[in-house]
This record gives sequence, C-alpha cells and structure tokens, in this order.
Amino acid sequence: MNDSASNRIGRTVEQALARLNFKPRELEPGHVWLAGAGPGDPGCLTLEVLAALGQCDALVYDALVSTDVVAVAEGAELFYAGKRGGQPSMKQDDINALLVRLAGQGRRVVRLKGGDPYIFGRGGEEALALARKNIPFRVLSGLTSGLSALAATSIPATMRGINKAVILATGHAAGTDDDIDWAAIARTGQPVVVYMGMANLPIIAAALLKGGLDPSTPAAVIVAATTPQERIVVATLATIAEKAAAAGLASPALIVIGDIVAMRATLAGER
Amino acid sequence: MNDSASNRIGRTVEQALARLNFKPRELEPGHVWLAGAGPGDPGCLTLEVLAALGQCDALVYDALVSTDVVAVAEGAELFYAGKRGGQPSMKQDDINALLVRLAGQGRRVVRLKGGDPYIFGRGGEEALALARKNIPFRVLSGLTSGLSALAATSIPATMRGINKAVILATGHAAGTDDDIDWAAIARTGQPVVVYMGMANLPIIAAALLKGGLDPSTPAAVIVAATTPQERIVVATLATIAEKAAAAGLASPALIVIGDIVAMRATLAGER
Repeated sequence: MNDSASNRIGRTVEQALARLNFKPRELEPGHVWLAGAGPGDPGCLTLEVLAALGQCDALVYDALVSTDVVAVAEGAELFYAGKRGGQPSMKQDDINALLVRLAGQGRRVVRLKGGDPYIFGRGGEEALALARKNIPFRVLSGLTSGLSALAATSIPATMRGINKAVILATGHAAGTDDDIDWAAIARTGQPVVVYMGMANLPIIAAALLKGGLDPSTPAAVIVAATTPQERIVVATLATIAEKAAAAGLASPALIVIGDIVAMRATLAGER
Repeated sequence: MNDSASNRIGRTVEQALARLNFKPRELEPGHVWLAGAGPGDPGCLTLEVLAALGQCDALVYDALVSTDVVAVAEGAELFYAGKRGGQPSMKQDDINALLVRLAGQGRRVVRLKGGDPYIFGRGGEEALALARKNIPFRVLSGLTSGLSALAATSIPATMRGINKAVILATGHAAGTDDDIDWAAIARTGQPVVVYMGMANLPIIAAALLKGGLDPSTPAAVIVAATTPQERIVVATLATIAEKAAAAGLASPALIVIGDIVAMRATLAGER
C-alpha cells in the first residue's frame, strides 16, 4: 500500500469517526479510569480508551502497552508500573497507592493495562483500593489478549460441532498449593486458554493429561499476537511444551489447548 | 456535560486519533472482513472495525448491532441478517452464501456481528464457507458481550482470592441431547458466564445445582449492557431464574454465576 492510499484510508477513518454518534464521557479531575489497551496493535484500541488517553493528565501504564499507544497521552505525566529487564516490578500495593495519590491531587488519571483490566489484569484489586477511598472510577474494557490472540491466529474460540464453552485460566500458580484444579478443567471437555502459563507449561500439560485429556489434543502457544512480532507454535498436548521451548518462545505467551486449534489449518485467512 | 464541553472532548478524540500511529489496512474488492461491534455502546468499537465500516460498500449486519454503528457505513449497501420481531431469521447457510456472492461481485464486504464473531457468533462457520471458496477474509475482534457486560456492571471477571479462571458457555442447547456437561462445569469451582441462556435459565440453574454448586452462589442476569437500556438483577443460583423472570428480563441476556458477582456490591463505581 503506497502513501497516498494509506492517507486516503486514514481519512476514511476520520470521516467514519465524525459520522459515529459517539459522545465521549468527560474524565473529571480526581477520577480514575481503569482501561484496557487490548492485545498490542493500535487498531485494537476502543474509541472509549482513545478518548481516555486524549483527556488524561496522568497515565499509569504497564510493560505490555505499546509505546505507540502511550504516545497518544501527549499531555500526561507518565508513570511506568510494569516489569522490565531484570528490574524489580512495582508491587500491586504501590500501584494502588499511586492511583489513590494521583486522584487525591485532582489529576485526571488513566490506568492502562495490556488486554483487559478485569481479565487477569488485577483491575479488581485496583478498583477495590479506589472504592475504599471513595475515589470515583470507571472500567473501560479492552480486547482480552487470549481471545484476540486466537482470532489473530485463525483459531475460533467457539465453533459449532466442536465446543460450547471456552475456559480462560491463569497458569501463574500452576504446581503450587494455590493452583487451579486442572483435572476438573480437563473433564469439562472444553478448550482452555491459559494466560501467564508459559513458565509452567510442562506442569499444566501434565495436569491436563492426568485429568484425562487425550495426548493428541491440539495445542498452541502464541506470542505477541496482532503485532509484527507475532509467533505461533502448533503441536499436541503431549508435545507442546517441548516444541514451544525448542522454538524459543518465552513469556508473555498464550497457551490454547483443545480441538478448536485444529481449525487453524483450514481457516488461516488473510493477514 | 453541556454542548461546548461535549464538543471539546470530541475534538480531543480526533486529536488523539491523529497522534496514534495507526495505519488502517485497506479493504480490497472481493474481500470479506468478519468484524465484531462489541456490546452495544459506540465507544466500545475498535479503531480497526471503525476503519472497516468506513471502507465497505456492502455491510451484512445483525439485530444486535446498533443503528448508530450501522449508520457509519454511509456508502454501503445494507443487508440485514438478523432475527427481528416474529419474522423468520435468515438461515446461516443463506448468510454464508450471501457473503460468498457479495465477494464474488467484487464488493468490499464487512460482516458485522454484535460482540465478537468468534465467541458464539458463528464467525467460524462463515470463515469456513469463505475459506472453502478461496475468498480472502480477516477476522476483526470485538469486545465480547459477556465480558463487557460484567465490567459494565462492576463485576470483575477475575479477582485474586476468588477465582483463577472464567468459563464462557452457551446456554442455547440446555436441556437437549446436545447440551454441555453443566455438572463438569460446576465441579471446576470457577464462575461461568452464559450466553443465549435466558430461555433455559431454570434448566441451567438446576443442572449447576445438581453438579454440586451451592444454592447460595451469587448469580446475576444482565440485559443491554453498556447501553442506556442496561438492566441487572442480582440473586442467588437458587433464586435467579424466578427473580429475573419476575423483573421481566428477557433475551438477549447474559447470565453470570459465581462468587465474583458479590464484588459488585463493593465495586459499583461511577457510571
């Protein structure tokens, strides 16, 4: 696509926005909006989140939010609250306290997470901290990384004749006393999408096998979905841990296990 | 918010869009984009879907897509493919054939669904029909209604200390031979969000109780989330069917069952 075509399409987006009956809410001083940036691509932002970024004067953002998206909050003071390199990450209590403090200063605060704040994003804890201090807040949903990663890699989360449910789970605590009951998950017969499970993939795969899932169940690991760095490895439940490691895939990554993964072979559409 | 404040905020959105490094893809003649409009509010549209609406010359849309959103596709011929009133709905095979035909005519086709096309949206079947005819297509994710409805009504889909997974299920086939194993779902101990389950709510609640869920488990029914018509009824698993019916709630509605529902009492933020 050449520059003039790109400009022309850019203008159609501006014109489409002008035609849409969208009246953005005002972000008032002392209020906090917990917002989701989606999986990575700027085109996955919602209009409501774009409006939030255009209005805030304080932006607290995570490692998974792209620099292109952060750059939209031109007039805002930026607070980085993510994990990077070998640096220690900001503790959740400190992030909660920062949001309370900024709101108390009368700032217009946006707390921006990759994906969705209420899906394994600890948005609930942040909302609770704000509610306890009587600070007004809203939650602006974003596309959750797990479901977007599936769509981006041509895997329908649900498909008639294959599944009637899809399970979103965290693999963070796999192998600990605080773990989810993977055997019970396996016995539903429904596909599971695992967030933050890459480091524990061998444990999770073993637990699902022990729960009765067939070793030949299709499985995939997806990294950086919707971005130019996107990668996917497809294997079976029995082999996925080994194959993803051999391909060098590392956190953050999404794991998906279930027959829906096999649809990819047929549905790999245009990219 | 008065008109001048509303105009001012509207301009900040336009300026935010201009600052964002978003280069929309070109929708080419003969291509089909399967897109999700999200739960209802125009602010929940993604930029990518807005760009699609600005470019298409044929729009095939559903009953759950708002008229405000359809109106964006100003230059497009409109094809209504939803169920309305007592009219018979367009059959899925006919919708698939329509998409194939429009693409064959060299149209720039957008197929727009409420929510997300790949989450109980039959987008997989439409993609399959297109793939079989070698018609180029893409899937543009939308906010899925179930998760957005939760966020809109102050229910975090996940909350540390409460759950480590969330199950999205369809209630369409409840009580038939083709039904999901609700007892297995219940035994995971994780909350479940049921799409298209309103007509079968008594059957679903009974099946979850039989599977071992406590009758006092918090439950809610949500209608028209994110729109001015939004309504919610909160009760327990034992009483939700009766209370939702007494309140006059009807399809389409989302059902959510699990301890996360109780968070609403504390987290009901700004609206």
